[in-house]
Amino acid sequence: MAGQNDGSLIGYKGVALDLLMKYQLAVGDTIKIITIDEENTGILMPRYESSDETHVVIKLRSGYNIGIGTEKIRSIVRLTDHSQSAGGPSTAGKSKPPIPVDEYRESYEFMRDSRRQGNPKIALIGTGGTIASKVDYRTGGVTAALSALELYDCVPELEDYASIEPEVLLNEFSENIKPAHWTIIANRIAEKVRSGNYQGIIVSHGTDTMHYTAAALSFALQNLPIPVVLVGAQRSPDRPSSDSAQNLLGATIFATKSDLSGVFVSMHATPSDDVIACHLGTRVRKNHTSRRDAFETIDGLPIALIRGGNPQIEVQETGIKLKTRGHEVQELVVRPNFDSKATLIKYYPGFDPEFIAHLVEKGYRAIILEGTGLGHVSSDCFRQLREAVESGTMVFLTSQCIWGRTKLTVYETGRDLLDIGVIPLSNMISETALVKAMWTLANTKDIKSAIRTMQENISNEISMRITTL
Amino acid sequence: MAGQNDGSLIGYKGVALDLLMKYQLAVGDTIKIITIDEENTGILMPRYESSDETHVVIKLRSGYNIGIGTEKIRSIVRLTDHSQSAGGPSTAGKSKPPIPVDEYRESYEFMRDSRRQGNPKIALIGTGGTIASKVDYRTGGVTAALSALELYDCVPELEDYASIEPEVLLNEFSENIKPAHWTIIANRIAEKVRSGNYQGIIVSHGTDTMHYTAAALSFALQNLPIPVVLVGAQRSPDRPSSDSAQNLLGATIFATKSDLSGVFVSMHATPSDDVIACHLGTRVRKNHTSRRDAFETIDGLPIALIRGGNPQIEVQETGIKLKTRGHEVQELVVRPNFDSKATLIKYYPGFDPEFIAHLVEKGYRAIILEGTGLGHVSSDCFRQLREAVESGTMVFLTSQCIWGRTKLTVYETGRDLLDIGVIPLSNMISETALVKAMWTLANTKDIKSAIRTMQENISNEISMRITTL
Repeated sequence: MAGQNDGSLIGYKGVALDLLMKYQLAVGDTIKIITIDEENTGILMPRYESSDETHVVIKLRSGYNIGIGTEKIRSIVRLTDHSQSAGGPSTAGKSKPPIPVDEYRESYEFMRDSRRQGNPKIALIGTGGTIASKVDYRTGGVTAALSALELYDCVPELEDYASIEPEVLLNEFSENIKPAHWTIIANRIAEKVRSGNYQGIIVSHGTDTMHYTAAALSFALQNLPIPVVLVGAQRSPDRPSSDSAQNLLGATIFATKSDLSGVFVSMHATPSDDVIACHLGTRVRKNHTSRRDAFETIDGLPIALIRGGNPQIEVQETGIKLKTRGHEVQELVVRPNFDSKATLIKYYPGFDPEFIAHLVEKGYRAIILEGTGLGHVSSDCFRQLREAVESGTMVFLTSQCIWGRTKLTVYETGRDLLDIGVIPLSNMISETALVKAMWTLANTKDIKSAIRTMQENISNEISMRITTL
Repeated sequence: MAGQNDGSLIGYKGVALDLLMKYQLAVGDTIKIITIDEENTGILMPRYESSDETHVVIKLRSGYNIGIGTEKIRSIVRLTDHSQSAGGPSTAGKSKPPIPVDEYRESYEFMRDSRRQGNPKIALIGTGGTIASKVDYRTGGVTAALSALELYDCVPELEDYASIEPEVLLNEFSENIKPAHWTIIANRIAEKVRSGNYQGIIVSHGTDTMHYTAAALSFALQNLPIPVVLVGAQRSPDRPSSDSAQNLLGATIFATKSDLSGVFVSMHATPSDDVIACHLGTRVRKNHTSRRDAFETIDGLPIALIRGGNPQIEVQETGIKLKTRGHEVQELVVRPNFDSKATLIKYYPGFDPEFIAHLVEKGYRAIILEGTGLGHVSSDCFRQLREAVESGTMVFLTSQCIWGRTKLTVYETGRDLLDIGVIPLSNMISETALVKAMWTLANTKDIKSAIRTMQENISNEISMRITTL
């Protein structure tokens, strides 16, 4: 028989709820749980509503939360009775009167607030996406972003690391994010950074275009004195398999404890919940539609790993020189604007060279051409490419291979493309190259400085020196 | 002192040449090589000109060739003198008169021809690309494709597996290959298959677009009674690091020994020369600009592996049902035509929806739209997509993530796209989807059957059934 939750066991359901009701427990009680292996004593914690049905969570005296599987539990002993402070003594065999959820939340929030005092302050800027949405399967509607309290309910461990100030800046599916949104996000981050109040900033973002936004912020915000960490979830928090909590925890640990500054993306490093990877904002790509470890650093290792159960950051040997925390706030360079007259097109067999002429005609000033292999396109395109370059449209080459770097000196086609004036971008990821071109167009005065800027390595968008093959 | 090769030691240079000259040896001599570990007796083999300088190759009585590192060689004893049959007895201390290379080649080719008799016959169709090219670094020019003899010089082990009949069908860099070439290649393969003379067919191809051609042949040639294996090289055969020989050997082993029929790609599975992977023609992608193991099966394992030193094919558990060798030749279905009115475009933040309208206006009948994540594009594109669909242009969605599958039922954007009539293609690779659309347009009568064909799994282009996330 599944019990009805009266509010004193907030978040519990199914098997776990039945068990806790059987022992007439309420959230806040100090309890001892006896399992087949061991005994643990702690405060019974509430659970986020999307949590699974087979764990009871207690906060140990050490401050850590542990979840104990219901199937292992032999018995539970109540040591102190939380409900007594609310007036009603518990009587065996009689159901306790429900505590109103709001009242409970208020006092609980207060309790938590005091626990978090002294923790590093983190600003959490919500832009929408899976991490902040609970899908209603009947209507397809998406409920509001998570409140601070919901965040802590969802990831109680956050309280051990940070005092998080969340705000909802945007509420967009990430496929609807466009360059104008990048400007809004960059400006808001700049305000937060300039306030000097935060140890780090977390941006929650839908994963579909999170890597585009990460690249955009990497160019828009330079000399950051603190880390800015983008975080998302591949499964929404109302699903048992959600990666939302672990990603957010990883982002929080990185944002509070890392010595590095800059723009990063924090997501699962493996399909399991064990390891969170922090990627450089310009070197990361979403490489899987649905896996938790969809985000990968291209041509290198993630900057850092955070392993479950060990909140130490493992900085990886990537060979990339990164900025460290602690620049003066005045050094922050904010160039938040983007110009949409840059485009990304992919070459393929049968590609119509007239596309290139069309783009020039439409006023595009920068074309990122995703060539094949080392950066090739058919000689059929040479005339239109030459005309584009002569008309003042910049044409840059990246590779549709994704990994590796363009190199136009190996084969005849590449050398012809160099003669035409097409500019290879080494191992810049195509998506990053597009974002950089939009940013460059908005932040340079003439084509000469635009070309120079595109080839310069501003935010580690080119990850290695060009070497021979 | 580096010796001059007079032609009797064809292919040897540097240390190995010096050593063989010191012992006054010639290719064809039966010799005993004494190393620090062992003794080996065999016929001194010629080497391909691009070979390294530190190995001497002999053919053992077992028929296998082995290479012996010069640094290990203590001494060499000549057992029979090959040059005596050419008239001039060898005199110690006196350099032997050179044997004209052409004359040597002729007799040697005859010797090899007889050895290969009884081996399975393989047709090798050259289309150009790195495997068949030797780059002249001064002019950038590319020399002619390899002759049969050069192939055997390059990869003596080929003789153990196959009697190869090479022909040069095309000589194109693969970035210049277009749909019309796919038709030429498909028709030529069909002729070879129908002759019934071959155990398998190998197509050498530049790697840049080899996966597009592999997909094209997978649709153009159905119910193949034998395997068709595409093979390329990431480094040209005149480089010491060339992968050409091992890839070709792997392709030959697969083409002669595999029970499977269909279209495959055979390339390095790892950066070393140890393992060759055979990929399904519709499920493979070039994922690195320059690494030897650039080709990867997307969303699964390669069909088979071939490990160095072990010519057995390890068929992998991929869960994919493949056709096996031995259909009647009459069952072969040849549909070699492609219609270029299909295009592939990649969505990105800031994408101009008018581009879709432009494609409709230009008469495109199928658009493969590489969406974000599970297959999303901004709601800004909905009107133009609706108009495209209403005008009779088919719009298909793939994911720019590369791995994983489209799923439009999870989020609102996806459901809207389904309402509009955009058709998701599950985990079909974007490049394969483009090729299939070109093929479908040329091989169906109306839009209804075209849409059905696009969604049908014809050549394992959709590798798994759609499951929940």
